Amino acid sequence: MTTHLPPYWLRDNCPCAECRDQRNGQKLFQITELPDDLGIAAQAELDGHLEVLWSDGHRSRYPLEWLAGAADGDGRTEADKRLWAAADFAHGIPEAHWEAYLADPAEQAAVLAAVRRSGFAVLRGVPAVERQVLAVAGTFGHVRVTNYGELFDVRVEPDPNNLAFTSVAITPHTDNPYRDPVPTLQLLHCLDNSATGGDSGLVDGFKAAAVLREEDPEAFAVLTRTPVPFVFRDRGTELRADRPLIDVDPLGRIREVRFNNRSIGTLRGAAGELEAFYAAYRRFAAITLRPELQLEFRLDRGDCLIFDNVRLLHARTAFEKDGHRHLQGCYADLDSLTSTLAVLRRRAAALDTIAELFAGEGAGEYLGEAVTMAEHMLQAGALAQAAGAAPHLVAAALLHDIGHFRGALHGRDLMEGRDNRHSDTGADWLARWFGPEVTEPVRLHVAAKRYLCAVEPGYRERLSEASEYTLGVQGGPMTGEQAAAFAAHPGAEDAVAVRRWDEQAKEADADTPDFEHFRPLLAALMH
Amino acid sequence: MTTHLPPYWLRDNCPCAECRDQRNGQKLFQITELPDDLGIAAQAELDGHLEVLWSDGHRSRYPLEWLAGAADGDGRTEADKRLWAAADFAHGIPEAHWEAYLADPAEQAAVLAAVRRSGFAVLRGVPAVERQVLAVAGTFGHVRVTNYGELFDVRVEPDPNNLAFTSVAITPHTDNPYRDPVPTLQLLHCLDNSATGGDSGLVDGFKAAAVLREEDPEAFAVLTRTPVPFVFRDRGTELRADRPLIDVDPLGRIREVRFNNRSIGTLRGAAGELEAFYAAYRRFAAITLRPELQLEFRLDRGDCLIFDNVRLLHARTAFEKDGHRHLQGCYADLDSLTSTLAVLRRRAAALDTIAELFAGEGAGEYLGEAVTMAEHMLQAGALAQAAGAAPHLVAAALLHDIGHFRGALHGRDLMEGRDNRHSDTGADWLARWFGPEVTEPVRLHVAAKRYLCAVEPGYRERLSEASEYTLGVQGGPMTGEQAAAFAAHPGAEDAVAVRRWDEQAKEADADTPDFEHFRPLLAALMH
Repeated sequence: MTTHLPPYWLRDNCPCAECRDQRNGQKLFQITELPDDLGIAAQAELDGHLEVLWSDGHRSRYPLEWLAGAADGDGRTEADKRLWAAADFAHGIPEAHWEAYLADPAEQAAVLAAVRRSGFAVLRGVPAVERQVLAVAGTFGHVRVTNYGELFDVRVEPDPNNLAFTSVAITPHTDNPYRDPVPTLQLLHCLDNSATGGDSGLVDGFKAAAVLREEDPEAFAVLTRTPVPFVFRDRGTELRADRPLIDVDPLGRIREVRFNNRSIGTLRGAAGELEAFYAAYRRFAAITLRPELQLEFRLDRGDCLIFDNVRLLHARTAFEKDGHRHLQGCYADLDSLTSTLAVLRRRAAALDTIAELFAGEGAGEYLGEAVTMAEHMLQAGALAQAAGAAPHLVAAALLHDIGHFRGALHGRDLMEGRDNRHSDTGADWLARWFGPEVTEPVRLHVAAKRYLCAVEPGYRERLSEASEYTLGVQGGPMTGEQAAAFAAHPGAEDAVAVRRWDEQAKEADADTPDFEHFRPLLAALMH
Repeated sequence: MTTHLPPYWLRDNCPCAECRDQRNGQKLFQITELPDDLGIAAQAELDGHLEVLWSDGHRSRYPLEWLAGAADGDGRTEADKRLWAAADFAHGIPEAHWEAYLADPAEQAAVLAAVRRSGFAVLRGVPAVERQVLAVAGTFGHVRVTNYGELFDVRVEPDPNNLAFTSVAITPHTDNPYRDPVPTLQLLHCLDNSATGGDSGLVDGFKAAAVLREEDPEAFAVLTRTPVPFVFRDRGTELRADRPLIDVDPLGRIREVRFNNRSIGTLRGAAGELEAFYAAYRRFAAITLRPELQLEFRLDRGDCLIFDNVRLLHARTAFEKDGHRHLQGCYADLDSLTSTLAVLRRRAAALDTIAELFAGEGAGEYLGEAVTMAEHMLQAGALAQAAGAAPHLVAAALLHDIGHFRGALHGRDLMEGRDNRHSDTGADWLARWFGPEVTEPVRLHVAAKRYLCAVEPGYRERLSEASEYTLGVQGGPMTGEQAAAFAAHPGAEDAVAVRRWDEQAKEADADTPDFEHFRPLLAALMH
């Protein structure tokens, strides 16, 4: 199989440190720097890897699993969406409470995933205060400022420059199609909705486009290939963007929908083209108005709707002026939302990995102590928590021996007389997820033992038998000079605190919480 | 000709007040509201217009000139660009001084037009202070915040997460291709460049793509139809966008270029496709490196480069650490820049219209006075300026009789005993361009005469013969009650000031400046 891989593709994907920044994956060479006659001089499969010697002498090593990887997408086309009709939400729409969203990364991830897959979600109980919508956007991305400002107020205005700022019904549309780039997300936060009417509606524009493609493929094709001039003009603004109503990617998959009858300007072209466009446009518009596609719900005070503005069409029923209706909205972009979701998932996966380490290797004996490694670490975390320690210290206490699981040298090697430097190994691994406030006490917890044995009378005597043994391997008590240097280290105090819980956390049959107890605390500390 | 116009197209473009908001041009009906059997019941050409009676009873009226209009574009494709090679700027690059850019709308328009047409411009003499780049972006648009923050510092950093923050050479590339939407503009403001090296380079990516299309059409086609995964990942970010290197619009015109070898992730596909893509990619990359396409120049302290990030590739030569190099950059978007340019041009066109009125109708006699209308208004403006009046009052004095030119009733009608309400007509027309601080003194300048004649002993006696005549037509001196109401009006003081200059501005053969003298003052007041 691997013999048929195109050489430039393979070489461009070389994962070695010379070719690629190990931290961010950015390539360190230009594609033009590769020789014109690049070829594979030799290759072999070994240890689950393809090893390649290149004609220019470079060597590359690729995991076979990676080579066999399948194509995936960036999540922006219909291929990665859940297309929907109103009935699909008969049992409820994607929603979460603001407090839970803020407190629990899993809840936040679920909300962002709903926006990505279904195109929307509603946060309930968001404080109904002015400008709060900007804070909501800030939890996953960056506000996109437009001619309407950083945020806009949707309420009846005396001299409206947009239909949104009146009380009349508004049919399903996307916002700002006259912008290029169009804002890909919109947020609408309800501060007040005591008027009769003024309900919100959503239509899945991808679904509507897919229905059109099914029922009238030629009309669909016309809408994908006709750039339509969208225009908006007021005193300080003159925007125009020529884009198709339905934008497909090079593979023909629906990627973006723009639909706003109010802002379609004058399309020019041959009479036949105009005729075909208007027939297709009317047909598509009629589909977006089908009752089965209209999802209707009410935004009440404190609700914040987040939706994909290059996919979902939003609408509003007319309302009476018998009460107030006031929404604040802002725009943002899908790329940051998707990035935030990916990072949340990456962190959740890291916590899963740690949980597996506790459950797996952690269940093994702990260097001759009466507890398992997992019990020891859980006890240390629980002791820190019982002492009222700050979350980062609870995390450091909980994770201080993680290097025993992860090091190239296993914990057993320590008992065989070699310092496995598990404190450094653990701290370095944790640094992928946690800041120095967590990693440095872990890094220094071995040094802290050597320090305490040097400066605190009676400390060494209280060490367990195993800990007394490893003290020797680790270098014995510090000299006076070493101890002074250690004490001057800004992280010394935290490291000493962790060390004390470490020594205490060796009680057989203590009643300790399990790893899941600490997950929210860890999640909140991850960056 | 007009009989072949598609009915739905024609009706969708009906300009009447029922169909369209007269202020912002937004449509007030849904395309689906038009009947399925819409047809033209009758039509006729009259007074340069096509008049249509529709089958549903609606009537529309279209200027024939508008009907004959040709297609234009939104300015974003190669059709509206000036594609360039380095030699095209042998006599200098598009640039302007910051102070001139701020003071003169024509200078600002020239800079923005250069960015739109050629893809870049340099502002010189921008204050070399931190965060100033944000102020530059604010002159034409809105900053796009990214994972790099509101702005980013380009200088050697101890722990760089991006090659930009090192001293090594960087080959031509576009920024942030892993974002979707990608920021369409970039600004780089030089705070310090005393290092050896560190010059800037630009390549017109549209030109490079056009060269590829010319030399290897199939390679060009491959790059337009292959979505490439661009990726960026660091501690808090995980961005990915699958987009082609060369993006064409539905008509096949080059619309956007993304080029960044560092952030191309793993493309998956059949071996033949990968082979074809890499051959095309290498060919395109080689073109971007051709010396004749590389425009090189140096950014010195105070220079701010503004460039199109979905068209131009930017590069940097390596630099020595023998001096400091510090740039601050930010992203923004082309749509707002283009809007600002359109508004500047719209205002310039309005000033041209006013200038033509002064030169044309204005050269006619002024209601029996010894001066022409233009001389009268120019004198009034000059008197206000000589009195040290604020700019808005100079403008009001200059333009106070503009309604004589523009009213449905011409100035002559006034002399025939009818009040042509020229003050309202003028103020309403000016309100398209100026705020109430200019329009209200214009609106009230007739009332101010009636007020002054009522309250100021001797004022009426000083009126010219013609002005005494029109006083009667306009309602004569105010009653005591009217005068009290007028005096309480917040704009009364300004209107009275304008009125006094009005009365004085009737000197035959006075030495007055021409209209162009006032243009910058007017331009600065327009909104």
